[in-house]
Amino acid sequence: MPRLRPETVDARRTAILAAARRAFARYGYEGATVRVLEAETGLSRGAIFHHFRDKESLFLALAESDARATAAVVDGGGLIEAMRRLPERDAGWLGVSLEVSRRLRTEPAFRDEWQRRLDSIRQSAEHRLVSAQHGGTVRDDVAASTLVTFLRLVHDGLVVHLAAGTPDADIDAVLDLVERTVRKDPCADLQREQS
Amino acid sequence: MPRLRPETVDARRTAILAAARRAFARYGYEGATVRVLEAETGLSRGAIFHHFRDKESLFLALAESDARATAAVVDGGGLIEAMRRLPERDAGWLGVSLEVSRRLRTEPAFRDEWQRRLDSIRQSAEHRLVSAQHGGTVRDDVAASTLVTFLRLVHDGLVVHLAAGTPDADIDAVLDLVERTVRKDPCADLQREQS
Repeated sequence: MPRLRPETVDARRTAILAAARRAFARYGYEGATVRVLEAETGLSRGAIFHHFRDKESLFLALAESDARATAAVVDGGGLIEAMRRLPERDAGWLGVSLEVSRRLRTEPAFRDEWQRRLDSIRQSAEHRLVSAQHGGTVRDDVAASTLVTFLRLVHDGLVVHLAAGTPDADIDAVLDLVERTVRKDPCADLQREQS
Repeated sequence: MPRLRPETVDARRTAILAAARRAFARYGYEGATVRVLEAETGLSRGAIFHHFRDKESLFLALAESDARATAAVVDGGGLIEAMRRLPERDAGWLGVSLEVSRRLRTEPAFRDEWQRRLDSIRQSAEHRLVSAQHGGTVRDDVAASTLVTFLRLVHDGLVVHLAAGTPDADIDAVLDLVERTVRKDPCADLQREQS
């Protein structure tokens, strides 16, 4: 294989990742065979696996990059903000996310490895919520950890619906409801005062 | 193949379905090959496909029976009741449910067929909520259809978490929060009176 210039290497890695994402989303992890990956990338297996050790490395590179992107959104704006951005995600992003869920279910070794990443997103979200509870903008009659579990369930349900193409016309209204549920309710204080 | 008595036919169908459920949950739809189904049922392919036309019929029989069971719970107790019962479900039930989601995503023909069943569960849930809004037990500042979408997202997220073995210690507390979110809030009236 001829030596490529560094910027060409990067461009090629990016192109391979984009093509692999389409393949994983459409055929699933097992279904995206090396032959499918060759067809989707337009490259030989030798060229593909020059950049990524194997199919597993390719999948992990995608899933890790997505997990980092989600973590950055959660750090900056919280889990609800991450949910508001989900409908913009393409089918490839959603497909990889669902493949991660499936592999968590069927592959214990993958689960042990991946659980650490999920824990770190959870901790970041929980930290934000605890601060907001202290700041008085998030309700404190429910534990921050419970609020995080609640938000993660809605988030993961939304990924399933968007990926399946479930026709939910009112996602914005639902996310408004979710946001109000987590927010400090001025009524609760009112009620406490009256009782 | 010798003729079996009707009760033996029923028992055998039930046994095949239980074995197929384990196979689909563990290997996914594609991974549960005819060979895997033979090993799991302890029967020959001839015996299996004497009772079910093909693998697709076997999968649909399971998915339909699960959809009917969910519809019955929703009819009787609503979507939150259906969620409270999810943690009792075994891995086989959750696995089939996730395979339905995956096939909704990757197979348009399956989606068209299945969407009608999902629509009917949605209608039943929405009908219950509209009645409860009129009865004053469910909040009416949010459309019943939005409440149903909200509950379905939490439901489907919970299926993903339970199937993946995500360690959520506080599912009961989350479902209490979800129930309070849907319930008519006495505070809202209080606030309206004061303003």
